[in-house]
Amino acid sequence: MALTRGLFVGRFQPFHNGHTHVVKDVLTKVDEIVIVIGSAQYSHRIENPFTAGERATMIRSSLDEAKVPPSKTWIIPIADVHVHMIWVAKVVGYTPKFSVIFSNEPLTRRLFMEAGYKVKSIPFNKRDIYSSTEIRRRMLANEDWGQLVPKSVAAYIKEISGVERLRDLAKTDELGK
Amino acid sequence: MALTRGLFVGRFQPFHNGHTHVVKDVLTKVDEIVIVIGSAQYSHRIENPFTAGERATMIRSSLDEAKVPPSKTWIIPIADVHVHMIWVAKVVGYTPKFSVIFSNEPLTRRLFMEAGYKVKSIPFNKRDIYSSTEIRRRMLANEDWGQLVPKSVAAYIKEISGVERLRDLAKTDELGK
Amino acid sequence: MALTRGLFVGRFQPFHNGHTHVVKDVLTKVDEIVIVIGSAQYSHRIENPFTAGERATMIRSSLDEAKVPPSKTWIIPIADVHVHMIWVAKVVGYTPKFSVIFSNEPLTRRLFMEAGYKVKSIPFNKRDIYSSTEIRRRMLANEDWGQLVPKSVAAYIKEISGVERLRDLAKTDELGK
Amino acid sequence: MALTRGLFVGRFQPFHNGHTHVVKDVLTKVDEIVIVIGSAQYSHRIENPFTAGERATMIRSSLDEAKVPPSKTWIIPIADVHVHMIWVAKVVGYTPKFSVIFSNEPLTRRLFMEAGYKVKSIPFNKRDIYSSTEIRRRMLANEDWGQLVPKSVAAYIKEISGVERLRDLAKTDELGK
Amino acid sequence: MALTRGLFVGRFQPFHNGHTHVVKDVLTKVDEIVIVIGSAQYSHRIENPFTAGERATMIRSSLDEAKVPPSKTWIIPIADVHVHMIWVAKVVGYTPKFSVIFSNEPLTRRLFMEAGYKVKSIPFNKRDIYSSTEIRRRMLANEDWGQLVPKSVAAYIKEISGVERLRDLAKTDELGK
Amino acid sequence: MALTRGLFVGRFQPFHNGHTHVVKDVLTKVDEIVIVIGSAQYSHRIENPFTAGERATMIRSSLDEAKVPPSKTWIIPIADVHVHMIWVAKVVGYTPKFSVIFSNEPLTRRLFMEAGYKVKSIPFNKRDIYSSTEIRRRMLANEDWGQLVPKSVAAYIKEISGVERLRDLAKTDELGK
Repeated sequence: MALTRGLFVGRFQPFHNGHTHVVKDVLTKVDEIVIVIGSAQYSHRIENPFTAGERATMIRSSLDEAKVPPSKTWIIPIADVHVHMIWVAKVVGYTPKFSVIFSNEPLTRRLFMEAGYKVKSIPFNKRDIYSSTEIRRRMLANEDWGQLVPKSVAAYIKEISGVERLRDLAKTDELGK
Repeated sequence: MALTRGLFVGRFQPFHNGHTHVVKDVLTKVDEIVIVIGSAQYSHRIENPFTAGERATMIRSSLDEAKVPPSKTWIIPIADVHVHMIWVAKVVGYTPKFSVIFSNEPLTRRLFMEAGYKVKSIPFNKRDIYSSTEIRRRMLANEDWGQLVPKSVAAYIKEISGVERLRDLAKTDELGK
Repeated sequence: MALTRGLFVGRFQPFHNGHTHVVKDVLTKVDEIVIVIGSAQYSHRIENPFTAGERATMIRSSLDEAKVPPSKTWIIPIADVHVHMIWVAKVVGYTPKFSVIFSNEPLTRRLFMEAGYKVKSIPFNKRDIYSSTEIRRRMLANEDWGQLVPKSVAAYIKEISGVERLRDLAKTDELGK
Repeated sequence: MALTRGLFVGRFQPFHNGHTHVVKDVLTKVDEIVIVIGSAQYSHRIENPFTAGERATMIRSSLDEAKVPPSKTWIIPIADVHVHMIWVAKVVGYTPKFSVIFSNEPLTRRLFMEAGYKVKSIPFNKRDIYSSTEIRRRMLANEDWGQLVPKSVAAYIKEISGVERLRDLAKTDELGK
Repeated sequence: MALTRGLFVGRFQPFHNGHTHVVKDVLTKVDEIVIVIGSAQYSHRIENPFTAGERATMIRSSLDEAKVPPSKTWIIPIADVHVHMIWVAKVVGYTPKFSVIFSNEPLTRRLFMEAGYKVKSIPFNKRDIYSSTEIRRRMLANEDWGQLVPKSVAAYIKEISGVERLRDLAKTDELGK
Repeated sequence: MALTRGLFVGRFQPFHNGHTHVVKDVLTKVDEIVIVIGSAQYSHRIENPFTAGERATMIRSSLDEAKVPPSKTWIIPIADVHVHMIWVAKVVGYTPKFSVIFSNEPLTRRLFMEAGYKVKSIPFNKRDIYSSTEIRRRMLANEDWGQLVPKSVAAYIKEISGVERLRDLAKTDELGK
């Protein structure tokens, strides 16, 4: 029987425990998971503080921590095209062949459905706290965010001074770029 | 006497009865009208739900319905450049020669005026309801929008499940692209 | 029965009698033809001397001359993407719905075939002389090219000093851009 | 001893007295100043009304007025890349070699610091009124803005009808691009 | 002791036995290898027939065949920027942190050296036959190429009709795009 | 009487004595010269070895050496657009207002003429040896090129190891990018 692959797209700013659960859940349904790092070109922005390489590093270490075998995962950064009509074609061109998309995001779901793909929902708990937006909010507010991400992600963000970077991005000044 | 052509630029998301009236009005003043589908690269967005091809289809069927002869119209999709200083040059490069621009939009008017073109205003009634923004608002609010567009546009939007698409685009989800 | 449309892609530098024959032939097989002006962004180059707007003008006047009704034709300029994996998606996004592609060009045929489209060949005679490359060669060599294009195209190229432009493009100089 | 150069990045929409003071101050610390006109590609927008060429003209005339010798200044327009991770590399590629960046803008500071550059703050008074944002606000509100910019800038903006342009940009209309 | 990573950039059109040997050799010198699929945006061209996703598939299966553990490899597709001054910054932004580049390619070597990176040569035998160019030549000439690539690559290229695609790309026709 | 400005476009790879003569000659005819560094985005290529910043440095030092006052010159780097129909608009947007173009390059001349500008030829001697192409050829062939450029340019190219860079760019290798 042929190998089955599922696609999972996110920005992962940062990768958190909710994402780990999705990966594990998807791997109960397909043989391999293709994790697409979306908006790969962005970094050093309030909504997108980390580079694609930093996000790939977080994903790899999180999945190691969760004992997900690397032979079952693909991590592929893809820059946005901003032209939605061609986004599916770009994703298809950058990834190994897949047969199903796992997503709750309406635009992603619609674009793949209109292109004829099979789209499945992601069962997901505590979405209000396992959320990258919530994590970035807590980082800026100096609230506790560490327990929302894998230990290795917390350590890595500390190593690259990620919270300091985010706080700098949150400030602005009239006389600049 | 040489043929005269007028330029008419819009996003046409979607094309509506007000647009039809403009086309008919312009054709009382010049021999041919060049209808530029602006922001041609965008689709599947809240403000730009339809592709350039879908918009071209709506325009053609609307003008057929209104008995405007196709020999007098040009329909040209043009992607944005985002660099306003070169936009006029791009429009000129993509279109047959024209001598006058019909527009009420201040930026379009200014760019063409600064480039030395003749710019005329569009007499237009009931702009508050014959408005693409209003139509998209009604679609989302499940209010009646059908009488604001030509019959063939209403039928075509139904055929491509356009309202469903717009509603999907209006939703969003944390865990996605 | 639903309307059928065929796609015909070319650069049309310039549009010639061979192209006219293809359009007429395609219209014996489908209801409408979608003529895509490829490489629309290029002009003022040796291989691409004319703008998209100039080419659209030539196509419209040629088809008028050949008594092809404008209600059966669509003329859509599309800029290259240079990323072949997304080109089909872009063409689909810029055009009204079509069911078959008419092309002898291997790359075009392959891209649409891989995307699941029906592709048909174009029966075409005297391809060695009804050729845009041959016409540009004759223009530069000061040989007769006028009988290879519709009368209106020859007149239009004269009107815009097209041959002079092409000859300028064929020269170059060390100290320039 | 080798020549030292300092980098100063701004959008200069428009260049004002505060900018002049920065240039003079920087030139007490380094031999030459490289003034980068950021977001060079934008013009004819509410936040970016003037072209790069217009801004270069304002900068040159302001520095003449302030008796800053042109032999000590470089004026380099650079278009945005939107991909912050490569912005520093682009600035380095477009400018003569520099050893220090003068900026109060957190993102600029962080990007150059992460790339290993020396970054200094700008001592700057009355930032609330010597502000391009404030100047554009006053232009739109028909308040006095002339004393915030060098005389030659006020004259130049008048010459190119800059305030009229800005006011046009502030209006919008449903039926347009 | 901190983990060390080496960078290895190629187009891998296709991945062959020589590439496998490089990966194994690099892994005797560093802990992990970051394999960058360069020119990721290209496919369906004579010099770049395979998509980034197809190339990633070939690399993964080749390394499985060679018993290289997936936990020691990263496979990252990166589109060209065409602006060499920013290419290093883009690679850095898309990859996990690395300390040394393995390359024999003079441009790659120079760009990374000018940016201050440590660059090492690749010991490589039989470069004249373990060459993607030679493999594509043999595919077109209908000569034997199968023993130059891992078995799984030969099987995959057959599965996706890769040789047929390449032959189609090698043909051209006057009347097309 | 209003100030007159002339435009002079080149790639300046590198700037040489012939270019210096042109600048001096143009300044006998107009008040100021706007020197556009074309193809500003390219560097580290055989035909374009130097960055825009390096070329600006060469131009400034050459003109200092030639006693051309910096108050009469503008040095503006502009990236190519590849879309010739909009190139003139881009140049106009990046430069101070000018009234005449000095160029012998047929494409530049034609584009500005078609846009309605006044174009003048450049009287220029010994074009076969005062040529950037010839200089790069000599650099690669290890022949004498120093007397073709200003002394300060020769010194600067030595300082940045420009000849070594060019030689590296002239080599290539199968296994690379």
